[in-house]
Amino acid sequence: MVRQLGVVGCGLMGGSFALALKRHGLAQRVVGYSRSPSTTERAKRMGVIDVAAESALLAVAGSDVVLVAVPVAATEATLRSIRDLVGPDVLVMDVGSTKRDVVDAAQRALGERLGSFVPAHPIAGKEAAGIEHADATLYAGRQVILTPLPASRPELVQKATDLWAAIGARVLTMTPEHHDAAFAAVSHLPHLLAFAYFGAIAGQPAGRDLLALAGPGFRDFTRIAASDPAVWRDILLANRDEVLQQSQRFRRTLDAFEQLIRAGDAQALEDLIRGIAHDRAQWQMNGPPGPPRR
Amino acid sequence: MVRQLGVVGCGLMGGSFALALKRHGLAQRVVGYSRSPSTTERAKRMGVIDVAAESALLAVAGSDVVLVAVPVAATEATLRSIRDLVGPDVLVMDVGSTKRDVVDAAQRALGERLGSFVPAHPIAGKEAAGIEHADATLYAGRQVILTPLPASRPELVQKATDLWAAIGARVLTMTPEHHDAAFAAVSHLPHLLAFAYFGAIAGQPAGRDLLALAGPGFRDFTRIAASDPAVWRDILLANRDEVLQQSQRFRRTLDAFEQLIRAGDAQALEDLIRGIAHDRAQWQMNGPPGPPRR
Repeated sequence: MVRQLGVVGCGLMGGSFALALKRHGLAQRVVGYSRSPSTTERAKRMGVIDVAAESALLAVAGSDVVLVAVPVAATEATLRSIRDLVGPDVLVMDVGSTKRDVVDAAQRALGERLGSFVPAHPIAGKEAAGIEHADATLYAGRQVILTPLPASRPELVQKATDLWAAIGARVLTMTPEHHDAAFAAVSHLPHLLAFAYFGAIAGQPAGRDLLALAGPGFRDFTRIAASDPAVWRDILLANRDEVLQQSQRFRRTLDAFEQLIRAGDAQALEDLIRGIAHDRAQWQMNGPPGPPRR
Repeated sequence: MVRQLGVVGCGLMGGSFALALKRHGLAQRVVGYSRSPSTTERAKRMGVIDVAAESALLAVAGSDVVLVAVPVAATEATLRSIRDLVGPDVLVMDVGSTKRDVVDAAQRALGERLGSFVPAHPIAGKEAAGIEHADATLYAGRQVILTPLPASRPELVQKATDLWAAIGARVLTMTPEHHDAAFAAVSHLPHLLAFAYFGAIAGQPAGRDLLALAGPGFRDFTRIAASDPAVWRDILLANRDEVLQQSQRFRRTLDAFEQLIRAGDAQALEDLIRGIAHDRAQWQMNGPPGPPRR
């Protein structure tokens, strides 16, 4: 049970976490702060938060759990602004899609209070950002990756695990390095490719006509190209080495495809597609929520 | 009204067309043929076709409308096998995703009976192929592109237009060349990229672990990577010049992204993403079915 949840950044992610805790009767009180007062006000009107705080620090005052749900690039300044009220029993989490940069920022910002910080990355979201899309079920059945530091206090790591599990998420822990390498492959690169693909189509002289012809395959393939620009700017820059490395791997596979196409090698092309299509048809997104795995 | 519909190739596309005509009371009788007798039998058991024919030619005998719904590479042989029963009043359509090769095949196969042929490409499908997935609503609200030839008889082009419109599709006509150029951009390239991307991920030493971490963005981005291997082998080869050209455009945009990422140019990267994300958020798949456009 959380006595008081402090949410810094009342957007989709922070708001959904607050709603989920409330829905499960896990938070007695939620205090929220957003840089934009109108957002904080809206969160309060929507019942996502109970109290609108006038600063990040005031949202943290008296909170035993703090969720920092700001753009990754704002994490360091945010942590710095709240550090004085982060006591040893306070659990502080983020929701960033990259973890090495967040860990670096936390080390710089929190100093000897780093033990309170448990980096978290919920694998959930919507293209539509903002508090108005907050959803108590956003994390249900989704994976949440925790990347605890050597300094993270074990009881706070456990508390983080229990909280996410209690709202239906499936909790995994890994190192920040492993996290960033893996998500460069399965999340960051697809976003980069979807941006580049949609940009290449829309940017053609006939772009508008082309877009009018596109069907359901195009719709799903490009869905993530509508993702939040500031968030993805930060992710692609923060994880650039891993992303560029995965992009190289992708280009090599694309090269192989194009060579077969150019050569008209129907059998090899079919075999290549068949293996991939089979694997994709077998693939299933992480199953129903199970017991937390550590 | 169709007196008798002949379906050559009782798969998802052919079966769904038959079901849609039946659902709308537009076909008195459907005769079907598939290369595999068990497929033809299943189509009959499912009520998709009324009569199982023992050859393509027998499916065409007595039919006033014929839908050839076979892999594109099999179109020429199929048209050749039925040509003797294609009378001047018989409408013959295909459902292929490429049109220049189909037109070439039809010219070779049908000779002076080419006037009966109206090439068609319904922008609809499912990853799950096969008659068991046939669906009377597959084409409802979808676009169908007709690419009539100079030789196509105008009254048959009109008949084709009316039939597709009657089952809820939105009919567009264009040249085969325009069709292939446009669909290289909005359909064939995304499939190629999805195949290459999924292959690059699954083929890594840690592929299995990576796939276990992937979330909803990955799921949608790679959905089309499960598409039918034989169909896509044919499409990518038949339309190779346009596909490779579009791939080049895509690579140039990807290059531009990677340069910004490498340079750490946050503002330019955000601006680039913002324009794309905005356009994608505005984009809507072709709206509700309207009056047929010619």
